[in-house]
Amino acid sequence: MTEAIPRQGRKGERTRSRILDSAMELFSRSGFHAVSLRDIAAHAGLTHAGLLHHFPGKDSLLIEVLSRRDEIDAKVMSRPDPGDLLGRVVDQVTRNMRTPGLVGLYVKISGEAADPDHPAHQYFVERYQRLRRQGARLLSELFNRASPPLPHDPDAVSQQLIALIDGLQTQWLLEPEAVDMRASVVAFLSQLGLDVPPAHAEPDPPHHP
Amino acid sequence: MTEAIPRQGRKGERTRSRILDSAMELFSRSGFHAVSLRDIAAHAGLTHAGLLHHFPGKDSLLIEVLSRRDEIDAKVMSRPDPGDLLGRVVDQVTRNMRTPGLVGLYVKISGEAADPDHPAHQYFVERYQRLRRQGARLLSELFNRASPPLPHDPDAVSQQLIALIDGLQTQWLLEPEAVDMRASVVAFLSQLGLDVPPAHAEPDPPHHP
Repeated sequence: MTEAIPRQGRKGERTRSRILDSAMELFSRSGFHAVSLRDIAAHAGLTHAGLLHHFPGKDSLLIEVLSRRDEIDAKVMSRPDPGDLLGRVVDQVTRNMRTPGLVGLYVKISGEAADPDHPAHQYFVERYQRLRRQGARLLSELFNRASPPLPHDPDAVSQQLIALIDGLQTQWLLEPEAVDMRASVVAFLSQLGLDVPPAHAEPDPPHHP
Repeated sequence: MTEAIPRQGRKGERTRSRILDSAMELFSRSGFHAVSLRDIAAHAGLTHAGLLHHFPGKDSLLIEVLSRRDEIDAKVMSRPDPGDLLGRVVDQVTRNMRTPGLVGLYVKISGEAADPDHPAHQYFVERYQRLRRQGARLLSELFNRASPPLPHDPDAVSQQLIALIDGLQTQWLLEPEAVDMRASVVAFLSQLGLDVPPAHAEPDPPHHP
């Protein structure tokens, strides 16, 4: 569905997008608290007032940054070819391993957000509800498709898989060389009787220029 | 091994212990950053200067609070009767469910501590190294004792189990009624073929006064 957007609206969208790119980059690099709205404005080539015209404050920018990454992830996960869903979960973990700053941001903010007064509290409550639901749907399909069907409870395993990925991130951020997040997720799935396609189970081959 | 401790030394130990109790209680309730050394001194019935005589600052108090909880946990885990080790892991999760403030403190601080400059960074790196090692030893024994022995890799499963428990805490703190940490850990172990003794697998019976 494409609607005609007036020229001014398109320009506004581009500026918002540029601000979000800057915020994501700076939050990921230095964490939420260490970055000011002025830093983000300068990085996006705007004045402080110019930024405030698009976002009322740092809290709302944070929620937009977190939500936008969810949208990108959701797009990747909803591509056709459901047979390869499991591989895509593993690829998601691999992509995370290339963006430690962003992963660190999630780990830090989700830890703070247990406090009901935190600006991202409701965002994280709803995010985990959604992830558990989506994971259970996906796992239910995979358990039924296996031959013979696997007897696990999709809701329980979905919660475990999400917790596993989160907990691995904490260990990996502290000591990257001691934790292979991809291998650990592949091992967990294989203990359940789910086999990850080899193309996804192995790390990328080294680049030869 | 009991050594004769001079009276002054015993009094010093008691005061240190009282300060640590106060710090643990206040950090757990309000988080590390929101609590001042003055708050802790007042709670322990000391002056600010009196507290500084025992601990040079808030960072060192934090490390002591975190370490002391590890010591208590280690004592519980090293009791005789190794046959019941698995039940004790589950009981540990149950104890955590009674102290959301302390769990929240761990989740928050471990998220912050990915930063190498954080005062608790080295503490958490070493803590996870130790936990992975201890978990692997315990799991290796349990896998070998099973009949027939279970073919899992103890190191890999140890890392997964620790990650699972950590990740469950994040979801549980955000939405306690949606996450039964104990049931989730029991399900994970049972998927591996490890059966938790029923006394530990079920929640405590309700109290009848």
